Amino acid sequence: MTASAPVVTFLSDYGLADEFVGVCKSVMLSLVPDLRIVDLTHEIPPHDVRAGSLTLVRAAQYLPDDGIVLAVVDPGVGTDRRLLAVEVEHGVLLGPDNGLLAPAVAILGGARTVVSLTNREVWLPAPGPTFAGRDILAPAAGQIAGGVPVTELGDVVDAAGLVPGLVSLPQDGQDGAIAGEVWWVDRFGNCQLNVDPDELVTQGGAPGGPVEVRFRDEHRRARWVTTYADAKPSELVLLVDSYGLLSIALDRTSAAEALGLRAGAAVTVVAPGAAE
Amino acid sequence: MTASAPVVTFLSDYGLADEFVGVCKSVMLSLVPDLRIVDLTHEIPPHDVRAGSLTLVRAAQYLPDDGIVLAVVDPGVGTDRRLLAVEVEHGVLLGPDNGLLAPAVAILGGARTVVSLTNREVWLPAPGPTFAGRDILAPAAGQIAGGVPVTELGDVVDAAGLVPGLVSLPQDGQDGAIAGEVWWVDRFGNCQLNVDPDELVTQGGAPGGPVEVRFRDEHRRARWVTTYADAKPSELVLLVDSYGLLSIALDRTSAAEALGLRAGAAVTVVAPGAAE
Amino acid sequence: MTASAPVVTFLSDYGLADEFVGVCKSVMLSLVPDLRIVDLTHEIPPHDVRAGSLTLVRAAQYLPDDGIVLAVVDPGVGTDRRLLAVEVEHGVLLGPDNGLLAPAVAILGGARTVVSLTNREVWLPAPGPTFAGRDILAPAAGQIAGGVPVTELGDVVDAAGLVPGLVSLPQDGQDGAIAGEVWWVDRFGNCQLNVDPDELVTQGGAPGGPVEVRFRDEHRRARWVTTYADAKPSELVLLVDSYGLLSIALDRTSAAEALGLRAGAAVTVVAPGAAE
Repeated sequence: MTASAPVVTFLSDYGLADEFVGVCKSVMLSLVPDLRIVDLTHEIPPHDVRAGSLTLVRAAQYLPDDGIVLAVVDPGVGTDRRLLAVEVEHGVLLGPDNGLLAPAVAILGGARTVVSLTNREVWLPAPGPTFAGRDILAPAAGQIAGGVPVTELGDVVDAAGLVPGLVSLPQDGQDGAIAGEVWWVDRFGNCQLNVDPDELVTQGGAPGGPVEVRFRDEHRRARWVTTYADAKPSELVLLVDSYGLLSIALDRTSAAEALGLRAGAAVTVVAPGAAE
Repeated sequence: MTASAPVVTFLSDYGLADEFVGVCKSVMLSLVPDLRIVDLTHEIPPHDVRAGSLTLVRAAQYLPDDGIVLAVVDPGVGTDRRLLAVEVEHGVLLGPDNGLLAPAVAILGGARTVVSLTNREVWLPAPGPTFAGRDILAPAAGQIAGGVPVTELGDVVDAAGLVPGLVSLPQDGQDGAIAGEVWWVDRFGNCQLNVDPDELVTQGGAPGGPVEVRFRDEHRRARWVTTYADAKPSELVLLVDSYGLLSIALDRTSAAEALGLRAGAAVTVVAPGAAE
Repeated sequence: MTASAPVVTFLSDYGLADEFVGVCKSVMLSLVPDLRIVDLTHEIPPHDVRAGSLTLVRAAQYLPDDGIVLAVVDPGVGTDRRLLAVEVEHGVLLGPDNGLLAPAVAILGGARTVVSLTNREVWLPAPGPTFAGRDILAPAAGQIAGGVPVTELGDVVDAAGLVPGLVSLPQDGQDGAIAGEVWWVDRFGNCQLNVDPDELVTQGGAPGGPVEVRFRDEHRRARWVTTYADAKPSELVLLVDSYGLLSIALDRTSAAEALGLRAGAAVTVVAPGAAE
């Protein structure tokens, strides 16, 4: 253990109404009293591995160096799905092998060592197999934070065998249309698309210019602006969001609600040359 | 104070929308700058002492040794109900004397010293008596975390005089039926019963076998499985949950919603010998 | 940096479902590994500057000395509204210049130095201007926590030029009526008014006595009591709340729901001499 213990960044679908999160933290603090734990979010929709993996990707580059990520969205809890510790260049990610970690691992430079958390000496004794966060993952995080090498937590496994992430990429259609989807609806109702603004430029779009937004059977005109407040009241806009992706927005109003869009919804953006 | 201050585990019905929790933490950190505080949950339904006490019981065995529990679910705030510090073998619990602490105190080995927090020198000055968490309990927690003996916080009182908890126990009926109730509905809609699986075995039940679940005027067949993912789609199952109690579940679906069950609902489980 | 880093008290309208809060904390902890961060609340309604400013005012006197307040409710994010560091006698407040900080700054003794956070060397590089909490404010908070003087974060500006707060004051009408408004509805449904109890006494009211409460076209009789549990079932009461202001309440029931009141609603209280 160095002068100060590493930071554990904790993401889950546990919610905050039950004691799940607090108990996992108690388990870690019992092992490493000066541990610092940051809640990334615990409001991932229950069992929504995809939403959890996208949240990890968005946050990854901002996490403290040499930290630990504890991620629990685990619909297969108690089955034979593996629980993993994935060592990357500047830290370790812990979670179930269901695609939750894979995209963040890729963003962080790829897996160096992957361990299946099979060493039962590290587990907490438990009456049943349904709370792996508390019984297996939190103790593992505590051990790593305390300086135990990941290789002591179980069997080294092949990184190539990890379950891949479920992250979808957009497709360029005909006539300059880019068929994407909503990756994320944030608290303010902004709809992040899986579309890089450079793609739209390649198709003829330009900052400040018009863009057509298609979803369900609707075709809506939008304007590519810099920030929310650039939008006129009830004007639909697109902007490059804080993660560098195109996002559909309205000023001080939820675009998701106004348009009936949710995470996963198909959205096509069309640059003006093609739309006109 | 030892090398590091103890952990304060904080539970309340304050919610997270108001500043109540943050202000209580500020009060504690003003007294003990290096205090670590773990939120167990603040989403106990308003005034629901029973839900709070059950949450404390579930978490108790996982809390860091020699820690402090600050628990505030206090519908009688400002009345003459007592505020207590209850010293147990490995820590101190603070909260109102309304049954909130009693079950956890019992689980933690019973009260050694009980103090009524009557020493007004420790209280914060306050315009009214309606925020005891901030004005009395948080300062007391801070004092204890800083090394002040509980006996300096007020008058020692008789542990036998504490208001008991409201925790209900199941009753064995005729024909192998065990009449219990839902103790807890978790975020995933799993319904924890106040029924020990050993009781069901005594009545003729067996892991892997069928169990009849009765609630309101319904009789439903369920199967005793090991984990959620063992259930077929929409199959009702029972399992031993992560706290060692029987729980009613559906895979990736809320059993509570599907069956219309809430905390406190009466549920009878019947082992197959009796049910057939 | 002193023996321990200062406490950062963090308020926002980010909510807890997205990773916004966790990412801001990660940014701060990357700069100051032993930083302690207290969440005041992140459930300020989106863009509700007024609610945020009132929350800061209520909490201000309880915050640890020489701490840092990071406050983000920023509907104008990405526009030319300024981001400020406001040094007060015992700490620094950081946030947008939109009235969010002004009332708390006044309560804390007024601004000593105000800096516009224009020093881009402190900012994080970002693909767009829409997440100033992460890219500008959190790095500034980290720098200050690490001991950097506020004056190194940008240009000193005139404190007199700050956007003032939006906090409304009550008006004494004719016949002893005090025309106020609901400043805050808390989790329990208590409705805090912007009315000092002394004003009501001046108008003829007295603790224990009757008060008329008028809202919309309703006139309701209430009783001035000491605490919630003094109210009979479904009896409307007024009391001096934990912040020293008059509050409308029902025992263990939401007065806001029962009366249809929200933050911002006009409420007139009338002392008995005038009401009879």
